[in-house]
Amino acid sequence: MSLFSLAARVYWEDTDGGGIVYYANYLRFLERARTEWLRSLGHSQQELAQTPGILFAVAGLSIEYRRPARLDDELTITCEPRADRATVMHFAQRIYRAAADEPVDDRRRELLVEAEVRVVCVAARTLKPKRLPDFLVAALALERS
Amino acid sequence: MSLFSLAARVYWEDTDGGGIVYYANYLRFLERARTEWLRSLGHSQQELAQTPGILFAVAGLSIEYRRPARLDDELTITCEPRADRATVMHFAQRIYRAAADEPVDDRRRELLVEAEVRVVCVAARTLKPKRLPDFLVAALALERS
Amino acid sequence: MSLFSLAARVYWEDTDGGGIVYYANYLRFLERARTEWLRSLGHSQQELAQTPGILFAVAGLSIEYRRPARLDDELTITCEPRADRATVMHFAQRIYRAAADEPVDDRRRELLVEAEVRVVCVAARTLKPKRLPDFLVAALALERS
Amino acid sequence: MSLFSLAARVYWEDTDGGGIVYYANYLRFLERARTEWLRSLGHSQQELAQTPGILFAVAGLSIEYRRPARLDDELTITCEPRADRATVMHFAQRIYRAAADEPVDDRRRELLVEAEVRVVCVAARTLKPKRLPDFLVAALALERS
Repeated sequence: MSLFSLAARVYWEDTDGGGIVYYANYLRFLERARTEWLRSLGHSQQELAQTPGILFAVAGLSIEYRRPARLDDELTITCEPRADRATVMHFAQRIYRAAADEPVDDRRRELLVEAEVRVVCVAARTLKPKRLPDFLVAALALERS
Repeated sequence: MSLFSLAARVYWEDTDGGGIVYYANYLRFLERARTEWLRSLGHSQQELAQTPGILFAVAGLSIEYRRPARLDDELTITCEPRADRATVMHFAQRIYRAAADEPVDDRRRELLVEAEVRVVCVAARTLKPKRLPDFLVAALALERS
Repeated sequence: MSLFSLAARVYWEDTDGGGIVYYANYLRFLERARTEWLRSLGHSQQELAQTPGILFAVAGLSIEYRRPARLDDELTITCEPRADRATVMHFAQRIYRAAADEPVDDRRRELLVEAEVRVVCVAARTLKPKRLPDFLVAALALERS
Repeated sequence: MSLFSLAARVYWEDTDGGGIVYYANYLRFLERARTEWLRSLGHSQQELAQTPGILFAVAGLSIEYRRPARLDDELTITCEPRADRATVMHFAQRIYRAAADEPVDDRRRELLVEAEVRVVCVAARTLKPKRLPDFLVAALALERS
């Protein structure tokens, strides 16, 4: 299984008066990585909202803040998805302080954040749970093998 | 004409690593005041998006940052609307450092931000310009008199 | 023990393209309630950062999203603090869709979000854990009794 | 003169309930481009805040919203700086809907936003205006020639 990862930079918009990234804003970085993982499978959320008419809603998450990220830091956000039930995906995600071109398994990278995110596939119109589309079921099966 | 004003508090989410409110976030305070002015006329934007099917889109703005707001500051955001053309409203807006219960014309209040915001009424479906609804035309006429 | 609660309104800034509050932004509402609880004890974070030189850093949290909040919703955010160790507070927090003047134990209120937030008291300079100040220890002891 | 440009993607965090990018959030994209232009000159803001102890504060701006950006859009943000006075820079900035690998002068690109941003160099401690550092004066002179 290859771990999906995304690089991002910390800008002023992400920080707060404590000089570090505001605790809610790490969730934005986590979401970007999940979105780019989906795009890496060939699908955008705009398109999936049209056909087959689905959205992904975060149902719950837990997050541990290990070390603060600061202005100008280069972050690597990782994303390990797995299917849970027919309508639910789990993502184990981490944020490291690390340049994008460093190997993702470099042990010198500093772990900043660890999170578990539960995402439900819902019908775009009704927001009711709906089965994951086949391309996701296939991708998540591959992840597992 | 009575000047509309809204009180708001500065929280961590509004600040950046410089210890002051992030420059984009003043636009959130300005929008809250415009929304509450509209609500003071008896209308919410959710409801207007349904009937008669209109949204308000900011078409342009200019803003001057006089002094920075800081964590825990109490702000007063003012809002002076006027009609421009059949489809456009202008808002002269100011943000003061001031407790909500201080008189709005208190000269000791510190002026932090001044802005001019141009808002277009558009059809919710097509996003094309649409005439302002009658209740707004009436309210804006009152403002002028 | 009296449950602390804060009222807040959902504005455009809080929503995302799905028409509901963006999942990270609920954390902003939670933080506002914790900040106002602290202020209700007579202390602001600006002041505590000066004397005795402490900040409160979120060390971890879990959150369950039950139902989405929407534009114009009135929210009530509750906050039940308890001391954990000498340097750590836990907050059980909930967000309801509910007008500010409805009784906080009204069973008709819709529960939108439940969260557990772990907050560490740290030295403002070094960001290293520091004992909770006496006024907080006293307040948290009262909560328990 | 070479026009500086930065590519960025629109994520859920940037959109609002109208399905388009929230009007304040374009200012975040504009700031990212100014920050990366500075970095392209070999300097980060963290470092400049230490030595020679300066920050850049936005003193005012005007912005015109031509067309809305939407979820998943690829944006190109441009940045044309010029010195104004000894302590002030002006940035003419534009946001296009355009993939990063399209030529920056492609006429088919859709112009979404135009802005003029006035930035003051201030002392990090006092927030009082301070002369632009030599490397910036030199870079801005080059831009002009």
